[in-house]
Amino acid sequence: MKLMIQQVDEALGRYLPSEETYPTVIHKAMRYSIFAGGKRLRPILVLAGCRAVGGDEEKVLSAACALEMIHTYSLIHDDLPAMDDDDLRRGMPTNHKVFGEATAVLAGDALLTRAFGLVAEEALREGHEPARVLQVIAELAEASGTMGMIGGQVVDMESENRQIDLSTMEYIHRHKTGALIRSSLRIGAILGGGTDEEIRALSEYGDYLGLAFQITDDLLDIQGDQEKIGKPVGSDEKNNKATYPSLLGIEKAQEEARRVVQAAQESLQMFGEMADILRELAKYLLVREN
Amino acid sequence: MKLMIQQVDEALGRYLPSEETYPTVIHKAMRYSIFAGGKRLRPILVLAGCRAVGGDEEKVLSAACALEMIHTYSLIHDDLPAMDDDDLRRGMPTNHKVFGEATAVLAGDALLTRAFGLVAEEALREGHEPARVLQVIAELAEASGTMGMIGGQVVDMESENRQIDLSTMEYIHRHKTGALIRSSLRIGAILGGGTDEEIRALSEYGDYLGLAFQITDDLLDIQGDQEKIGKPVGSDEKNNKATYPSLLGIEKAQEEARRVVQAAQESLQMFGEMADILRELAKYLLVREN
Repeated sequence: MKLMIQQVDEALGRYLPSEETYPTVIHKAMRYSIFAGGKRLRPILVLAGCRAVGGDEEKVLSAACALEMIHTYSLIHDDLPAMDDDDLRRGMPTNHKVFGEATAVLAGDALLTRAFGLVAEEALREGHEPARVLQVIAELAEASGTMGMIGGQVVDMESENRQIDLSTMEYIHRHKTGALIRSSLRIGAILGGGTDEEIRALSEYGDYLGLAFQITDDLLDIQGDQEKIGKPVGSDEKNNKATYPSLLGIEKAQEEARRVVQAAQESLQMFGEMADILRELAKYLLVREN
Repeated sequence: MKLMIQQVDEALGRYLPSEETYPTVIHKAMRYSIFAGGKRLRPILVLAGCRAVGGDEEKVLSAACALEMIHTYSLIHDDLPAMDDDDLRRGMPTNHKVFGEATAVLAGDALLTRAFGLVAEEALREGHEPARVLQVIAELAEASGTMGMIGGQVVDMESENRQIDLSTMEYIHRHKTGALIRSSLRIGAILGGGTDEEIRALSEYGDYLGLAFQITDDLLDIQGDQEKIGKPVGSDEKNNKATYPSLLGIEKAQEEARRVVQAAQESLQMFGEMADILRELAKYLLVREN
């Protein structure tokens, strides 16, 4: 996994304009948030999804980076004063705190734009079938648009300071974070040449993983170590946010996390040891500290 | 031209989720700005570029709509309080005035995302060669990213309330508005099956057209009719913005507009009457009232 993260970081460095490229401030702002300590979960899922179906990981690095750029743009915009108004992210000042609001808006826009350009540009060099790459671009847009990530964000905003039920909360998570996680696995598998059955199994795994990720995130917000998670403990409660522990209670939420991780593992049954990273990832969620 | 605008409006209606699609507020916000009275210059250029090289206009409607979505997203974000802080656009309240800042940020993001998804999705149905569509997506990202439109916006922001020279002003225009105009013509020509020579000629035409568009825009801001242009006359001077008339004087700026329109016409020499719309467009800029 460490090696994958190194590969992704190195590729992100190559695929973004340098800090010296004119106009410099926007490239500095883009790189600031990209290199602000993300866990690279989505790129790892692209690479691991590709590996699981026996594809060549080297050839999905651009797609992996595109997923990270889209994830990062969404964080920059989410942190804006007009949205969540957060000053810190992973223990570091948020983009608009460092570069100002206007540049932060544009840095997000630019990362989103670059993500699509990158996949289109690199596809041929990486030797993929063009029609398959178009399928990936369409999938990426769907997962990050109003039927995916943006849709989840909208409903999340509408739900602020309101009582919401479990199904609304599930809608939010399945879209706001789940869609991109599921899509990362699918894109890795599509570009890696997976069969329809393999792609379906990885989609299912992605759905469970996204859910487990969210439940454990909610639990960390209550029980975590502020130093390790990089933001104040208890911020969900302070912001009146519906979470799994708040709706189910802590114990039931922990139980649910275990059940979902188990289901994720079961969706990997058809894969051999090439899917071991995905198994590790799911297991890790139950003991994560940040 | 009227027919083209109708075609584009109808296609935009089809290619955007309906106002009833959940979550409704984001789709309302997207449609509000898309249908807020834009002139559809960029989509017309896509269709006209395609026609000039003898292509089938019906098959570039999705690309034409994508260009309009990208243009519209950039206006929504430009109007935000953190950016130009404009309350009116084309005589109507700006997106954030109607839907709030958070939704306006997301509506812009969603239009940009949809633009790329649309081109990728529709390409096959429209019968284009996938490799050519990837080229178009890469071109679109380049023209709207930090080496194009966003780059121009960044330098424009940096230049506010500062004396800038002609070359900086030209950089701003060539990128902030010019890149997308040029790209519209190129994309129409690429998808229409144009030769390299034809694409080159249309790029040149696009550069001159973008420049003429900007100079006449600056002149309208001084000499225009507030009712017709939909914003207060004299706003550039009030905002201390460098413009062609402010740097060259009104008469010299008018002369420059005529010279540039003439150059645009000359770059169309290799085309027959199929390029007449492009000739009309250039001529129209010299008598435009909004």
